[in-house]
Amino acid sequence: MNETLDDLKAKYGAGNYLEANGCRFHYARMGKGPPLLLVHGWPEFWLTWRHNLEALSQTFDVIAPDLRGFGESRSLDRPAGAALTPQQVGDDMAAFMDALSIDRAGFVSHDVGAYGVQAFARAHSDRVTAMYFFNCPHPGIGRRWADADNLPETWYQYFNQLPLAVELAGHNRETCRLYIGHFLAHWSHDPHTFDADLDHWVDNFMRPGALEGGLAWYKGVDAARRDLIRNGPPTDLRALPHRTRVLWGEFDPILPVAWMDALADIFSDLDADICPGAGHFVHYEAPEIVNAEILGFFRI
Amino acid sequence: MNETLDDLKAKYGAGNYLEANGCRFHYARMGKGPPLLLVHGWPEFWLTWRHNLEALSQTFDVIAPDLRGFGESRSLDRPAGAALTPQQVGDDMAAFMDALSIDRAGFVSHDVGAYGVQAFARAHSDRVTAMYFFNCPHPGIGRRWADADNLPETWYQYFNQLPLAVELAGHNRETCRLYIGHFLAHWSHDPHTFDADLDHWVDNFMRPGALEGGLAWYKGVDAARRDLIRNGPPTDLRALPHRTRVLWGEFDPILPVAWMDALADIFSDLDADICPGAGHFVHYEAPEIVNAEILGFFRI
Repeated sequence: MNETLDDLKAKYGAGNYLEANGCRFHYARMGKGPPLLLVHGWPEFWLTWRHNLEALSQTFDVIAPDLRGFGESRSLDRPAGAALTPQQVGDDMAAFMDALSIDRAGFVSHDVGAYGVQAFARAHSDRVTAMYFFNCPHPGIGRRWADADNLPETWYQYFNQLPLAVELAGHNRETCRLYIGHFLAHWSHDPHTFDADLDHWVDNFMRPGALEGGLAWYKGVDAARRDLIRNGPPTDLRALPHRTRVLWGEFDPILPVAWMDALADIFSDLDADICPGAGHFVHYEAPEIVNAEILGFFRI
Repeated sequence: MNETLDDLKAKYGAGNYLEANGCRFHYARMGKGPPLLLVHGWPEFWLTWRHNLEALSQTFDVIAPDLRGFGESRSLDRPAGAALTPQQVGDDMAAFMDALSIDRAGFVSHDVGAYGVQAFARAHSDRVTAMYFFNCPHPGIGRRWADADNLPETWYQYFNQLPLAVELAGHNRETCRLYIGHFLAHWSHDPHTFDADLDHWVDNFMRPGALEGGLAWYKGVDAARRDLIRNGPPTDLRALPHRTRVLWGEFDPILPVAWMDALADIFSDLDADICPGAGHFVHYEAPEIVNAEILGFFRI
């Protein structure tokens, strides 16, 4: 690996910063056209879109922010480890778009980003043109988060809320590599998918505050998740009316394809399929399929 | 701290070894009288009984083995990380007693040890005179292992099955101290309870194979635990008829006192109480109460 993370920032239009909603956001931006926001998950940051940015920038004004606390984005008004809720991620998106004078946009997201985009679409329905999700966590998963066969996968959702997680994963570069590398390998269908970029991921998560910031998400989503486990899916949730496409990686161990079953309760204008041969990081694992789909989906 | 772990071994009668059932067992032994076995849990080893050994040895032949894979006990015929089931712990006890020419004994146990003693009592009922448990994990816990409010406590039961657990906790002395120290502090009512002994615990778990050996338990108990979560308590379980006392630490976060409710289905001759002010490690946290109780209970 000869490219540094700074080289990649220059190559993919990263290194832009703006302040909004009490946070200094870092983002990558490439291309001209209708705005398209790429919203990452955990353990990720803008670079997770490296196989998508150039292709999509031929047609769109592609903007890939680091979520608050992730990558180089940092809260200005609260500690790095302060809980980050889905609603706060949605509010951040609204303020981020305001700062860029973007009224409406298309959204591509998964994982943490998919929670944030759903919260944003509920609070700011008219600012969303259409939504494209990978392996979309949704309220219809309900109690299944705590199914016996799923428990070996979900331990990190609780571990990540403990000071111990930052202490162990942040002890040194090697423990950071072990911890972050575990998820990149285990959640990808081919465990070596991220090998060539793992050093960049370690560089990123060893930035001051980056581990705390990413893990803060698990504190923020905990109440909602345990409410689902306790009570099942909410019965009073209105479906989101936006044009929606979900492409679900066939082999994602943490969001199994079986959980696509209840998507239609959440999205009323839905087109959903399985992406063969991909795991959790569909955009990174199967970029040719994904880029072609996204270009077609948002061009309409 | 000036005493070394070797000093403590000499002081408390440890440093004895025997081979049985394909394992070289290490054990502490003090006193004369009817045999009384002290059977530890995770993350523990014989030294967890340091506040009990002398007091109990005034009346009993007190024997505190390191379970297979824990402390200095090592399998001779399989790898350190091979799964260890409750039945295997019970079989080990029978072979260990055979090697010492002990036919029947009283048993004091908790945590992993309590699973093993229950398995032993089911397989070798006439070799148990009476059983004394702290915070006793039992089949009546059933689905509650996966209750929403319990999930923040049980993550380690799954994490501990991964190679990642050994890699992170065993990375160096400091990560071992962080990981093992987390449980000693979090599961004790006073988080500083083990501070003075933490270095000994780190010495122990940094022995080759000691982390793997202890964590192997979580692989071995996984199928039974997930079966409870899937199906609830078994309906065909006969109650154990032995005279049984359970003393349950009031503040144990991983085995809450509410789970005492179903003990009578498991033990037909049961006397159970809450130990005020103690957490998971009742024998270590409240030794005066515990030693007095045990002397009275087994003297009858």
